[in-house]
Amino acid sequence: MASKFFANEVERLVAESIDGMLSLNPNRIARLEQGWPNQKVIVDRERHKRWEAKEAGLPVAVLCGGGSGHEPAFAGYVGSGMLSAAVAGDLFASPPTSAVVSALRNTITESGALVIVLCYTGDRLNFGAAVEAIRVETGLDARMVIVSDDVALRVKGAGEVRKTSARGLAGAMLVLKAAGAAAAAGLPLGDVERVATLVSDSVTTMGVSLTSCSIPGQTRPERTLNMDEMELGMGAHGEPGAIRSKLEGLDKIVETIMTRVGCVGDFDEVRRGSDVAILVNNMGGTTMLEFSAVVGSVRRQAEELLGCKVVRLYAGTYLSSLDMKGFSVSLLRMPDGSGGEELLRFLDAPTNAPAWASHLDQPGPPTLVPATRSRLSPATSFKAADASRTADKNMVSVHKAIERACMAAIQSRDTLNHLDACIGDGDCGSTFARGASQVRDSEAVRAAQSLHEALAVIADVAGEAMGGSSGVLLKIFFSAMASELRNDPDRDDIARAVTSGISKIMLYGGATRGDATMLDSLIPLSETLNAGGSWQEALIAAEDGCEATKSMAAKAGRASYVPGDSQMGVADPGATAVVLILQEILKGI
Amino acid sequence: MASKFFANEVERLVAESIDGMLSLNPNRIARLEQGWPNQKVIVDRERHKRWEAKEAGLPVAVLCGGGSGHEPAFAGYVGSGMLSAAVAGDLFASPPTSAVVSALRNTITESGALVIVLCYTGDRLNFGAAVEAIRVETGLDARMVIVSDDVALRVKGAGEVRKTSARGLAGAMLVLKAAGAAAAAGLPLGDVERVATLVSDSVTTMGVSLTSCSIPGQTRPERTLNMDEMELGMGAHGEPGAIRSKLEGLDKIVETIMTRVGCVGDFDEVRRGSDVAILVNNMGGTTMLEFSAVVGSVRRQAEELLGCKVVRLYAGTYLSSLDMKGFSVSLLRMPDGSGGEELLRFLDAPTNAPAWASHLDQPGPPTLVPATRSRLSPATSFKAADASRTADKNMVSVHKAIERACMAAIQSRDTLNHLDACIGDGDCGSTFARGASQVRDSEAVRAAQSLHEALAVIADVAGEAMGGSSGVLLKIFFSAMASELRNDPDRDDIARAVTSGISKIMLYGGATRGDATMLDSLIPLSETLNAGGSWQEALIAAEDGCEATKSMAAKAGRASYVPGDSQMGVADPGATAVVLILQEILKGI
Repeated sequence: MASKFFANEVERLVAESIDGMLSLNPNRIARLEQGWPNQKVIVDRERHKRWEAKEAGLPVAVLCGGGSGHEPAFAGYVGSGMLSAAVAGDLFASPPTSAVVSALRNTITESGALVIVLCYTGDRLNFGAAVEAIRVETGLDARMVIVSDDVALRVKGAGEVRKTSARGLAGAMLVLKAAGAAAAAGLPLGDVERVATLVSDSVTTMGVSLTSCSIPGQTRPERTLNMDEMELGMGAHGEPGAIRSKLEGLDKIVETIMTRVGCVGDFDEVRRGSDVAILVNNMGGTTMLEFSAVVGSVRRQAEELLGCKVVRLYAGTYLSSLDMKGFSVSLLRMPDGSGGEELLRFLDAPTNAPAWASHLDQPGPPTLVPATRSRLSPATSFKAADASRTADKNMVSVHKAIERACMAAIQSRDTLNHLDACIGDGDCGSTFARGASQVRDSEAVRAAQSLHEALAVIADVAGEAMGGSSGVLLKIFFSAMASELRNDPDRDDIARAVTSGISKIMLYGGATRGDATMLDSLIPLSETLNAGGSWQEALIAAEDGCEATKSMAAKAGRASYVPGDSQMGVADPGATAVVLILQEILKGI
Repeated sequence: MASKFFANEVERLVAESIDGMLSLNPNRIARLEQGWPNQKVIVDRERHKRWEAKEAGLPVAVLCGGGSGHEPAFAGYVGSGMLSAAVAGDLFASPPTSAVVSALRNTITESGALVIVLCYTGDRLNFGAAVEAIRVETGLDARMVIVSDDVALRVKGAGEVRKTSARGLAGAMLVLKAAGAAAAAGLPLGDVERVATLVSDSVTTMGVSLTSCSIPGQTRPERTLNMDEMELGMGAHGEPGAIRSKLEGLDKIVETIMTRVGCVGDFDEVRRGSDVAILVNNMGGTTMLEFSAVVGSVRRQAEELLGCKVVRLYAGTYLSSLDMKGFSVSLLRMPDGSGGEELLRFLDAPTNAPAWASHLDQPGPPTLVPATRSRLSPATSFKAADASRTADKNMVSVHKAIERACMAAIQSRDTLNHLDACIGDGDCGSTFARGASQVRDSEAVRAAQSLHEALAVIADVAGEAMGGSSGVLLKIFFSAMASELRNDPDRDDIARAVTSGISKIMLYGGATRGDATMLDSLIPLSETLNAGGSWQEALIAAEDGCEATKSMAAKAGRASYVPGDSQMGVADPGATAVVLILQEILKGI
């Protein structure tokens, strides 16, 4: 576990973190100026403006809070339709009563206030004392709902959960969302409390982790899990889990968790066929790669193992435990009928709270769509795309040239391997020869009725056969030439096509002239052709270019990893291949 | 670094991760069925439906992709107004050309396609080969923009960046967003390419990390940084950074990064006074606690150090490097005038891509609001809230009773400390005595004109003086009593108030009768009073209840951590305190 931190001073980290979140959302959330940073109170800015203006009929205030280290909880849930205020403590420590009183003082209205806390002694006491204090101070109604969704320590079959043993976990975020929406809908305090209690009573959570977390500024003895261990039933602070066991495969872990949160065989076992909402919480240190796989397994097993219909699936970092590598699953049993519809409406209601992802898709199995060859050319040949592409007249000489080129490449194998051995792994000749053999033997190449069709097929065949960077580069070169050509190309058309192929090699490959690659033969070749030179003159230019690679230090490709000195005097094998092949082709023209 | 993973088989992890993301968003993104899992192509489901229906006038297809391990990139950016398709490779490996060809085949239209890649050789070659292949195959226009936003390896003062040395980093996400929006707005391919190139040319990125990342299935020699080291100029795959240096404070680190991404003293130094958009990318392993502090520092220094106006601030995990603890800053120079307005429109345009947070606030310094005492009682006393609360008639006896209670608590100090020493840390008597002394000496208590006012003040004074759980619990008890009482309470009123106080202790404290706490005296007391018993009878019930704690094993509070046996025969000090105080009060009645 990392115990290095991005921080100025550890003592200021929580305050600076809150200010960072505020600076991302200065129009949505604000903090109370007085008491800072001992009292860390974040309020819904828009609501607070209306509150300050003594606007009548403001909805019930909904508050939550707790220790820091659980970001984005709880400041991230402050906003319209969710929390009126959040109170943050220091790292994993409850805020003082005075901070909660201040939060209540600055949000409560005639409609009253509902305070929601996750069941931890410090939070219950400090938030509780504040609720009682504000009642005395204002004579207004303030109430508390305590969320105890952890089922890890629950005694199987027990009719009632022992309050002190059930911690509050990420399921509480669904309580906040529903209660916040109920308040925003204008419900009276008693009804907001009823909604919060309903969700709190209906949600069960269990977590698993592979590591504990590292706490800035704390050098407590690190509880380490062995490499083959995991802990099930974690709290939110790195405290020991209920069960330490062998690390298992993901589906098996999820099966264990789903069985527990579904209370299978227990007094509130989730009913098969019923609707559920699920929240999968990343405890902070699980990679998004793994986490998505977790989410997929959870959804599948909720349906297949528990027989439930997953109507909503929340996935993300809702209540982190600093950098703990773990996740938890919260299962919310939706009531039947109109109660379920009402609850879904509250869960779906819009909010501008920074950390609540509002636009949720309806979950389901992955959607697969059939791949078609192309909408535009449902036939099987590239030719379908362009009706103007028909047969070339002089295909006999084209096929002869291809045959010669392939022979040249095959016969040059040892020469090229030898050159490559001086600067690379000595397989350049073999690679070219392999591609050339397959091109020579290809039925599709033989069937090509135009130079551009032949080049397109060669691009595929050679690219596939050669593999590696050189295969892809030749594929790019020949494809680009094929794109450029039309039927019965003349010398100028071919020169343009070669130029196009070169530019694409440079674009995608990132090399340029003077890097000791095949470009050092190809570029002089194309320049000579484009300047009106003959093929023989172009060949000479290519040969000169190839010769020049003997005094170059490779800057691209594999040879660039070899010290420059040891390359001196050796021609680049790619540049040499171009020359050898070109020489052979020109013999036949 | 963790090298334990949530996975079934490592070989299936990438595919299962993509399927998990798909199952969260089955109506928004889908994957091509054929070729899976070798070809991992994720498409915008809605667009694909229209594409399949051969709807005319579909916008330019915008595609991206690359190795996996960068989640939510790139599947998370598929959606309306962003990517038409993403192509995923294996972990940190480019997808094969064939997968990219398949993606292009299933998205390209007469309007053409723009492929955006981050500058890594494998991606340039494979995506490049596919672009060329699709041009040959369909005759349609497909183009590529390569993003090279990394400035870590840039040579200061150089007029042009050496292509192969500048990697593509998280700044590319802004390219995707702008190009996707430009395509959705109906712009032709050339203009979409222009927008992508503009952003690509205007964005500079540099990262820092404290750890490398752990790659599932790879046991490569772990490059470790010392505890006092960091690396600046990281790539996205855990490759070594450009500079390894001493770990510094956060603001200092951010200063170094802002100086580099602002190209201070370099050829494209950001202009003071100009508008910029900033993307702060969590590489995966930075806690949200730290990350928000990072974001705050970045925004502040962009304004104070570079003199820029930050018009947009994106913060989150946009391009992760598995679990690497690090972050990068991408600085996008906004063009002046209408070009800047157009770009901002594209950045702000809606998208339903799962990983793009659409609702962005305008960044700025944290907003502070003044805390007021209460909107309802701007005066300083709790009495303002309830005009019916006036003076009690028999305040003389109330003050006498308070005096006696305080004396009793002070005199019981040693007795209670002795009892507490058997089960706790022996300070219970001192704690009670400290609270009682301060209550006795309190001017505010003496000034109270009613029992409920006195109790409210005692709640504050005793709670503050005692501290710890017992202070909060007494604060809760007395506050709840104060809330319940009105002027001139009779015996029944007081009994109800005591009952209310008890219920709040149980609610917030989590203890109940039989847990060997002060409740074991208080509950029998209130039950007797509520059943019509006299104060003397209630005292006897409390004494019996206290006596019973001698045979209880504590289940709540500090004493619950002590083995049950050692508690036997010892009365709970809290329960004893209640009895001793009550005895003294009743002597005066």
